[in-house]
Amino acid sequence: MTDDALVIFTPSGKRGRVAKGTSVLHAARQLGVDLDSVCGGRGICSKCQVSPGYGEFPKHGVHVGPDALTQINAVEERYDRVRGLKPGRRLGCQACVQGDVVLDVPPESQVHRQVIRKSASERAMDMDPATHAYYVEVAEPNMHEPSGDFQRLADALEAQWGIKGLASDLQVMRVLQPVLRKGDWKVTVAVNDDGTGALPRIVALWPGLRDAPLYGLAIDLGSTTIAGHLVSLADGRVLASSGLMNPQIRFGEDLMSRVSYAMMNPGGDVEMTRAVRDALGQLAAALVAEAGVDAGAVVEASVVCNPVMHHLLLGIDPVELGQAPFALATGEAQNLAASEIGLGNLAPAARAYILPLIAGHVGADAAAVALSEAPETRDDLSLIVDVGTNAEILLGNRTRVLACSSPTGPAFEGAQISSGQRAAPGAIERIEIDPVTKEPRFRIIGNDHWSDAPEFGTPTITGICGSGIIEAVAEMRMAGIVDPSGLIGSAEQTGTARCVSTGRTHEYVIHDGSPDGPRITVTQGDIRAIQLAKSALYAGARLLMDEMEVDKVDRVVLAGAFGAHISPKHAMVLGMIPDVVLDRVISAGNAAGTGARMALCARSARRAIEAQVKRIDKIETAIEPRFQEHFVAANAMPHASDPFPELAKVVALPDVSFNSGGSGDGGGGRRRRRG
Amino acid sequence: MTDDALVIFTPSGKRGRVAKGTSVLHAARQLGVDLDSVCGGRGICSKCQVSPGYGEFPKHGVHVGPDALTQINAVEERYDRVRGLKPGRRLGCQACVQGDVVLDVPPESQVHRQVIRKSASERAMDMDPATHAYYVEVAEPNMHEPSGDFQRLADALEAQWGIKGLASDLQVMRVLQPVLRKGDWKVTVAVNDDGTGALPRIVALWPGLRDAPLYGLAIDLGSTTIAGHLVSLADGRVLASSGLMNPQIRFGEDLMSRVSYAMMNPGGDVEMTRAVRDALGQLAAALVAEAGVDAGAVVEASVVCNPVMHHLLLGIDPVELGQAPFALATGEAQNLAASEIGLGNLAPAARAYILPLIAGHVGADAAAVALSEAPETRDDLSLIVDVGTNAEILLGNRTRVLACSSPTGPAFEGAQISSGQRAAPGAIERIEIDPVTKEPRFRIIGNDHWSDAPEFGTPTITGICGSGIIEAVAEMRMAGIVDPSGLIGSAEQTGTARCVSTGRTHEYVIHDGSPDGPRITVTQGDIRAIQLAKSALYAGARLLMDEMEVDKVDRVVLAGAFGAHISPKHAMVLGMIPDVVLDRVISAGNAAGTGARMALCARSARRAIEAQVKRIDKIETAIEPRFQEHFVAANAMPHASDPFPELAKVVALPDVSFNSGGSGDGGGGRRRRRG
Repeated sequence: MTDDALVIFTPSGKRGRVAKGTSVLHAARQLGVDLDSVCGGRGICSKCQVSPGYGEFPKHGVHVGPDALTQINAVEERYDRVRGLKPGRRLGCQACVQGDVVLDVPPESQVHRQVIRKSASERAMDMDPATHAYYVEVAEPNMHEPSGDFQRLADALEAQWGIKGLASDLQVMRVLQPVLRKGDWKVTVAVNDDGTGALPRIVALWPGLRDAPLYGLAIDLGSTTIAGHLVSLADGRVLASSGLMNPQIRFGEDLMSRVSYAMMNPGGDVEMTRAVRDALGQLAAALVAEAGVDAGAVVEASVVCNPVMHHLLLGIDPVELGQAPFALATGEAQNLAASEIGLGNLAPAARAYILPLIAGHVGADAAAVALSEAPETRDDLSLIVDVGTNAEILLGNRTRVLACSSPTGPAFEGAQISSGQRAAPGAIERIEIDPVTKEPRFRIIGNDHWSDAPEFGTPTITGICGSGIIEAVAEMRMAGIVDPSGLIGSAEQTGTARCVSTGRTHEYVIHDGSPDGPRITVTQGDIRAIQLAKSALYAGARLLMDEMEVDKVDRVVLAGAFGAHISPKHAMVLGMIPDVVLDRVISAGNAAGTGARMALCARSARRAIEAQVKRIDKIETAIEPRFQEHFVAANAMPHASDPFPELAKVVALPDVSFNSGGSGDGGGGRRRRRG
Repeated sequence: MTDDALVIFTPSGKRGRVAKGTSVLHAARQLGVDLDSVCGGRGICSKCQVSPGYGEFPKHGVHVGPDALTQINAVEERYDRVRGLKPGRRLGCQACVQGDVVLDVPPESQVHRQVIRKSASERAMDMDPATHAYYVEVAEPNMHEPSGDFQRLADALEAQWGIKGLASDLQVMRVLQPVLRKGDWKVTVAVNDDGTGALPRIVALWPGLRDAPLYGLAIDLGSTTIAGHLVSLADGRVLASSGLMNPQIRFGEDLMSRVSYAMMNPGGDVEMTRAVRDALGQLAAALVAEAGVDAGAVVEASVVCNPVMHHLLLGIDPVELGQAPFALATGEAQNLAASEIGLGNLAPAARAYILPLIAGHVGADAAAVALSEAPETRDDLSLIVDVGTNAEILLGNRTRVLACSSPTGPAFEGAQISSGQRAAPGAIERIEIDPVTKEPRFRIIGNDHWSDAPEFGTPTITGICGSGIIEAVAEMRMAGIVDPSGLIGSAEQTGTARCVSTGRTHEYVIHDGSPDGPRITVTQGDIRAIQLAKSALYAGARLLMDEMEVDKVDRVVLAGAFGAHISPKHAMVLGMIPDVVLDRVISAGNAAGTGARMALCARSARRAIEAQVKRIDKIETAIEPRFQEHFVAANAMPHASDPFPELAKVVALPDVSFNSGGSGDGGGGRRRRRG
């Protein structure tokens, strides 16, 4: 009989011999098996549960006898009595190896577990958070050896958990002494080790054993809205989501007007910084309240944003981002005290991670999309588009990834459209125009059925949102109401009285305002605004394709809330995106938010995107002469010269032209506006 | 003819062979010679000047020919024309070695120079500051390679100066972009490398070459007063000194009443923290204004203080320091952003270093004294006493150093004394009592001559300060007015009408109030207060001597402003300090302030005191039973049992006793107070 035994862990398959009498927890550590523990083997946290298998295991070539582990001991009995242990489970810190054994580590006992979510739209998160909880027993102070409480806590963390060279934050010093005494020198400590080589640091501590998850915030800081998710750092689950308007809107709707505000108003950048930091604090408070968790257990935040928001959040005047060469003050990932960016209402020394920027016009939000969609892991060529006021565009595959930003303007968000509005109840989000009768049917947000105009119900129709205007223009093109150049035909040319003259041009009436509600039309100006936006988007994509030396892509990924609502067919009819097999146009949902969550939950994701951002080839549209050529050529719908064979397989676009000047209604040139 | 040459640097004596054509600056770096340079060899900063010697150098065994260095070049000529080069000097970055040469590095070209000051009282500082200035030329931004300005600056610092892995502070990010542009991508950067292994960090930057010193603040944060020195980090010179009252006095005169304030008033510690941080900011502003330097060039601060002030400065509730076991939250040296402790008005990311605490009652001020006086470097045994509201006492030599704190109370500072006052104009600071006539003569602060009472001039006499009361009591003892037990004799017993009855006891009238001014006396209560204070001090010293197993010390060092004014003879007559050869009682001046300056000027000093604090054996007087015994035995003047042979050689103390009860003036027990 030998003094050691074979131990095989599943599902990892890791195996090795350990001395008999070794605890399962120690065996796991010796063999590099991912088995959780908060209390460090004191039998109180129950994180280290395993399921031993008994009998024959031909696959592993072992026989596990009934005495392979020590008998259930008093600690396990008490734990089972007080808190309940699932049948067949053992505490890894109590059960000791006596013979060859096969031990299954259930998912909840794994630190780096991958959590599979039921909702298909919600991404499974790889868990490798920077912050972990550790239970420690600290030596009491002693007048003969007057070391500080912090030093004794640091000594305990080193002796009991091997955590060395702890940095100290004043915020933790402030709460240290009462917590140590309240816990009678036994405390649970949250330690952040961001994996960059910086010293680990305590971010929070609690008296006694704290047997509850730590939390993090994933924040998508947009120019218009700020969205946040409260995430469990145990499993990556989203416990609450909330959003608020970016209060910087009062300084300028779009980024460039905010940059101008900073340039024109001394101290204007400071005002905007204060506003956005205050908003982050409010968002954090709202999320914590919604989830009903202790704000002090929120130990980390991750933030994604565009470069201008990034600089304003960090307190850097964004003036250089308003002019060539669009020099960033810094583009590298930031590891900060969360309190430095307005998140002072979390754990005492909570940390914040800001994803790296890609370039002066391509932000951390685009980096988060790149992290989430990971085109560099695929053989096929992905075009990834995140549409906002600017469109961030990524093109790439396993060999190379390119990025650019294209100034689409806000038309895709319903701004600068005569009946446009943000996506909110009452907005037309879907529309169909009968190619024969030219009559519209539509669906409005907040109402789950299609209506034609007379039937519209509650909520009251109020306007057209971004996805609605794209469908409207595309449907008008498919119904022959708009020609390839973007001109709206007259009633005579189109055969419908819904095309009415507004002087030199025409508009298409979706809803005439009766019996009540606003009159909703698509004007020639609306078509022009959409054409400018879609040309910019297409030109950006085309520029990247030139750089990649390809004429087609294999798939198009539409990211963002907008991308989730857009109809691939309609987008392609407009020529927003290059021709591709229709079912290869997919929505990635809120990919930037997903990327923020990934970076929150796993340091490996941070390292991945930091490395990937350096590898991405950045294309600056503003200085590429071909951008202008592509932009002009992309004005036609879908395009003046590029073929759209895949689109042609599903849609036959009418060959009309209204350029010869169908007369208007002879009116005096007064253009009717909404309302 | 060989391709290399022998280069000998003086005064270091470092020598070695370098390839001909090597610049003197490079040769110095190769040979590890301390030769300064800010511009990195561009011929613009002039820090690298050397004086070549020509001819025979028998001591070094070389002959230096006239062509040992390259001829003066255009850069040196221009420099000499524009800014002037001392005769015989060369710029080390321009002059290249052509043959064997002896090169003297003048003190101003040495980075780690020791600066010899004219004033004997001012300590020469070893210079090894954590922050140095570097001139760098930074690559301009480029739309094709959109790295951040900070990254390009970091790259330049690495390429041009070998500084790797720069940490970034938001405060620097805020000023980075305009300074780079103003300097046309040439900037001088102040980089702090605190030598702890933490990443180096930029603390300030200026456009172009900044050819002026960096500055630091050395702050001695006392319970009552806060003193600060503005110091040049080029040579350690003090450019301005200033002080202000600690505004926390309004929360309590002494430390324990401040601790009580924090305990009794929720948020009281936060109030006190804010008050002291505000005061530091004011002090910094005053120093910068007085010295007329740019606040933005003040890149560091060092702070010494007692443990309660330390915790309050760091924002830690000091409640644990008010009760056994007097547990510190942290005692280790702190490296912080200066803005965290109220010094937000210096260089953008200025740093602060707080010296380590020794124990719960023995602070960073005592550590600074230990650094300044360095008893561990001496063979003889030093007793070092820093007298304030508490006395910090160090005893040690090369073999061992001990420390304790003793609760002397504020009597030595003139508090709790009937006519006591702080040292300020009008206070009696020196006093003599004629042993025959028992008549006093005194000197008051602000008046440089001795007076007897009728002659006192301006400023008006107002009271007795700490050193004055010690002299008064000791002179009374020497003149036979007070007996060894501390009793004041009656007029009959002492033979002077200045001893008047106050009921059951007597008082000695120093000044009767005529022609004007207050009546100033030493009461029996004053004697008792001084006895309590001196007994505590002596008992603390004696406890350390017991621990050291010695009966006598070789020298006594009196530190602090008080120590500078105290008369060794009088202190020994009282029995404040153990018997020692009188001329071995020396004043160290403001040793705590000197220690703060040393830590400000040299990282080596920081490492030295951090290591030394760990080696010092801490004695807690509160739990040593012998402390009470020593305290009681020390009540007599000079002592009930310990012999004072050295004192006896210079002073014969009258053998009087008033214990048998010389009657008072029969008054009704009303004690007269100052009025």
